[in-house]
This record gives sequence, structure tokens and C-alpha cells, in this order.
Amino acid sequence: RYPDGSVRLRNPNIELMDQDILYHLALGSGSHDLVSMFGDVKFVCMGGTPKRMEQFAYYIMEQIGHKLPTGTTLQDISQYSYRYSMYKVGPVLSISHGMGIPSVGILLHEVIKLMYHARVHDPVFFRIGTCGGIGLEGGTVVISESALDGMMQPFLELPVLGQLVRRPAKLDKEVGQELFALSEREDPYDTVIGKTMCTYDFYEGQGRLDGAFCNFTETDKMEYLNKIHKAGVINIEMESLSFAALTHHAGIKSAVICVTLVDRLKGDQVLAPKEVLDEWQERPCKLVSRYIRRYLTLKGRLSLDGHCGSMCV
Amino acid sequence: RYPDGSVRLRNPNIELMDQDILYHLALGSGSHDLVSMFGDVKFVCMGGTPKRMEQFAYYIMEQIGHKLPTGTTLQDISQYSYRYSMYKVGPVLSISHGMGIPSVGILLHEVIKLMYHARVHDPVFFRIGTCGGIGLEGGTVVISESALDGMMQPFLELPVLGQLVRRPAKLDKEVGQELFALSEREDPYDTVIGKTMCTYDFYEGQGRLDGAFCNFTETDKMEYLNKIHKAGVINIEMESLSFAALTHHAGIKSAVICVTLVDRLKGDQVLAPKEVLDEWQERPCKLVSRYIRRYLTLKGRLSLDGHCGSMCV
Repeated sequence: RYPDGSVRLRNPNIELMDQDILYHLALGSGSHDLVSMFGDVKFVCMGGTPKRMEQFAYYIMEQIGHKLPTGTTLQDISQYSYRYSMYKVGPVLSISHGMGIPSVGILLHEVIKLMYHARVHDPVFFRIGTCGGIGLEGGTVVISESALDGMMQPFLELPVLGQLVRRPAKLDKEVGQELFALSEREDPYDTVIGKTMCTYDFYEGQGRLDGAFCNFTETDKMEYLNKIHKAGVINIEMESLSFAALTHHAGIKSAVICVTLVDRLKGDQVLAPKEVLDEWQERPCKLVSRYIRRYLTLKGRLSLDGHCGSMCV
Repeated sequence: RYPDGSVRLRNPNIELMDQDILYHLALGSGSHDLVSMFGDVKFVCMGGTPKRMEQFAYYIMEQIGHKLPTGTTLQDISQYSYRYSMYKVGPVLSISHGMGIPSVGILLHEVIKLMYHARVHDPVFFRIGTCGGIGLEGGTVVISESALDGMMQPFLELPVLGQLVRRPAKLDKEVGQELFALSEREDPYDTVIGKTMCTYDFYEGQGRLDGAFCNFTETDKMEYLNKIHKAGVINIEMESLSFAALTHHAGIKSAVICVTLVDRLKGDQVLAPKEVLDEWQERPCKLVSRYIRRYLTLKGRLSLDGHCGSMCV
């Protein structure tokens, strides 16, 4: 982080390059004016699927009263990458990150470079996701206190030039607490804070009995889940480790907010009907939206009563 | 593998379940008649992006002379999963796997279970991908002999209930050799066989100097790339380890065929124009198509001169 809050890269090579192609975003510092396109970004929201992040873009547009010029609609900025989808709604980017640590990792490298090229000041990154809960009813919102790997280690371990490098998987405590404070008593579901386990596999790696392979028993599984639960783990997903480690290493504040789709102490399969799952997935979006609205309100930038386009001629 | 060639699961739990929901495919053994939908599948082709695998589906349809009933078109079978895209063209499935080991791993668990539920006999799995080459010109087709992780270990290492499990990352030598034999002297590019390194990261994990972070020099990078090149590694990508390990563990024949987008001994960024990259990506598809055509020809099932629909009234 530079003194003015703009994002600093821990890589001296980038500023020496003629141009930097953000290959998986279909953007580049030579081909695009990244400062004018993205200089006003404050919040970067990421989630698994293109569909959910498109929905989030329209949702946050309504929530912050952002108006598009007449005759325009949102466009997927990274559509020609065929890898990720990216939508921009004023100060908010909504981007899909795919599944797993490598997929979110590629995205983070390129979005952090994007923040640098665009000279964005003090951005806040959110992961809005889904997870399995441990001892939590389906539909519970979990704010991650920190991320652990499948061996309960609090860092991302990565081979770099044949050497294992470790990066602490730390999330911003303040942002986490602020989010927690924004949960409301009237919310018809619980919002909790706890440790998140992040794995490289959904089936065996999360102790599921229903993958293509399984060489442990239900008793083994329950013993394991109870053990990690006692150590403070309340949910399991597949991206938080990289999300926490890379944003922390870049000096960017970040938080992970997931909704549980199943209580792993009761089963492995995601059985809830589609409509219920859809409603559950809106819950972390609501919390992040409250955070963004509060920030914009404090800055006097919330424009719910502002100008509007063709709708109110 | 059962004596009749049908896929056996190394998991005794599945056959005891009332129904098996293949959550990330938007399919289920209770909700769908998987035998009648998928029982005729012989080849499962996977690649990174939904777009490329949709194009491959149309390409293979033309190549094997598969005709759709009048008034029909291909449909993304897994569209409501919002995770992967899946197309079926007669005996061929064409599925996107996203980026990285976890993403392809989730898919493999569910597709292997799909093969089991559908009672498919002796399927062959292909990964059709992109990679960085080492000492190979951009556009070279690489058939993987085997897969190694970022520490040069020939297995997938995965925490299962807190214990590290190792799965050999073996590919089918015969299928690899058959594919190699199908490269043609007239092809305006090289097709080679060698070892593939599979990493969990695209930037630091592959020794790139142009990520958001980099704490090594160009000299360190070149030393490392030359070292792994001497040990037989000719390309680097992000899925082969899981692809090899999970198919091998399931007793399914598989091969990985990638085209190089850049020679890592000459640079890190993917600089070739989009049209060139698009043409390069067709090359592994052509090789796999030759394999499938040869199989169907030998079985007398290639129907290039067969019945046709509305086009030839």
C-alpha cells in the first residue's frame, strides 16, 4: 500500500513492462485505459458462478440507487476471456471466480494488478459464497474469522520454483466485525463468525461419503468433523484460503461471507430445493449490500433519490 | 472395472443411497433416467471453457457425421448448475471443467459417478487444454506422458480426514501412443509427447515474473525452467494431475492433449492475437477427433454418409 492508499504490487517487474496483458480478464494496460475505466472502484465482490455475480450486479445497482444512462444495460466486461464474468456498477465490481483455490488465485493476481493499474485507493474485497456448515442449519450466514487448509494450517502453501512458500491466510478483523454488526435481529436466519476450512476437493477432501471414491466410514467422518468443530471450524468451502492469503499479502482488506447449503453433521448431499437454495444465496449478498450502502451513505454518495433515466420521463 | 467393462466405483456407499444428486452437473439418479440418457457414451472430452467445449461439440458432430433430429439443436445439459457446461453428441460428451485441480476434481467425481449410474462400458476420457510450453514454439500440440506436481512428484496429494493421501497421476500409455500416431506429417505444427507439470497457480506457481507478486529474479526463473526441462517436463498446466490421478484410480483410460500458448523459455505473457490463439486451440481437438473417428470407423459406426435431416429434402 502506498501512503495515499493506492494498491502497491509486491512485484518490481510490472512497472517495467511495456504493457501488462490481464489474459484471463480480457483486459490489458496497453489496450485499455484502465484508470478511466476502473479508477472509481471501491468494492470488489467475488463469487463462484457467472450467473450469481450477474444477479448480484443488478441487485447492488438497485440497492445503491445506481442509474445507467438511458438505453444501456450491464455488459460482461470479461466476456471474451470465456473464463470469468465481470460487471461494474459504479464503485462496485462483481466478478465470478469459478471453483477452487487455483481459479480464484488466477483471478486475484489479475484483479490486484487491475487495482494497481487503475490507481484504485483502499479497495475492499468480498467473497460471497456457499459452503457446508458444521453444526449449523442450512441457510446460516457465516463470516470467516480466518481460513485454514485441510491440515488445519492457517496459511496457503504453494510451490514456487520448487520451494514451498507459506502465506498467512488472514482476513480483516474490522471488516468482519462491521459485517457482523450489520446482521439484523429481524433476519429470519442466523449470522455467525468462525473459522473456515478451505479444501482442494469437495468429496474426499471434505470427508464426504458420496464421492466416486471413499475409503473411510461414517464413524471416521463424524469423528473428524467433530474434531475440527471443537477446534473452532464452523464451515468448509474451497476458496477462502487463497482469497485471504493473496489479499492479505497485497495489503488489501477482505472478508469472506458464505451461506451454508447443508449441515455436514447431518449429511453430505445438497438436498434443498432450487428455490430454497436460491433464497439462501441471497443472504450473504444482503449483508455485503448493507456494508456498501452504509459506506456510501457515510460518504454522502448513496443516490437512491438521485437522477433517473428513461423510467421517469 | 467390472468384468463387462462397466465403471465400478471405489465407494460402497453409492449403491446404498436412495438417490445420488450430482449437484454440480444438475443431474441426479432419482430425477433422471441416466441409463437411457447416457448409456451410449464412449468418449468424455473435457476442456477449460464452456465456449470451447460447445464449439468442440459442434465440431465433433460434423466430424463423426452425427445428425440431430429435424428442428433440434444442442443444449447445455448442465446449464442450471451454472458451474459446468455439458453437451452430448451421440457417443461423445463434451464438458467444460473450469480452471485448476479442484474444479476438474469435482467434475471428475461426478462424471465418474455418472458413468457408473449410466452403466457405460470402457469409456475413454480426454482433457483438451492449453498450456505453457518449455522449449516449444507456440501452437505445438503436447500429449502428456504423465503428470507431475509443482514439486516434481508424480502423484496427487490430498488431505483426507486430516491425513495426506497420494494417488499416482498415471495416464494411459496406449491411448497416448495411439494419439501420437494420429498426428500427420502434413500438420503445419509439431505434436510431441512428454512430461507435464501441473501447478496450483498460474503466476508464481509456474515461475512467472508478471503476477501481482514476485520475489525471484529472471535468472532464478530460467534456472528452474531449465532444470525441470532437463528432467523431461515439456509443458505446464493446471489440471492434468487430478485428471490423471482420478481417472487412473477409477480404472478409466485417459489422455491429456494440450496446445502451447507461449514458450516459457522466451516469455510469460500470452501475446499471440486472438485469431491465432483460436486456431491453435483447434489443434488438440483435431487430434482427439481423429481418434474418435478411427474408433467409430473400426466399429462400423461412423455415419458420414448416413441419413440426414431437413437439409437434404
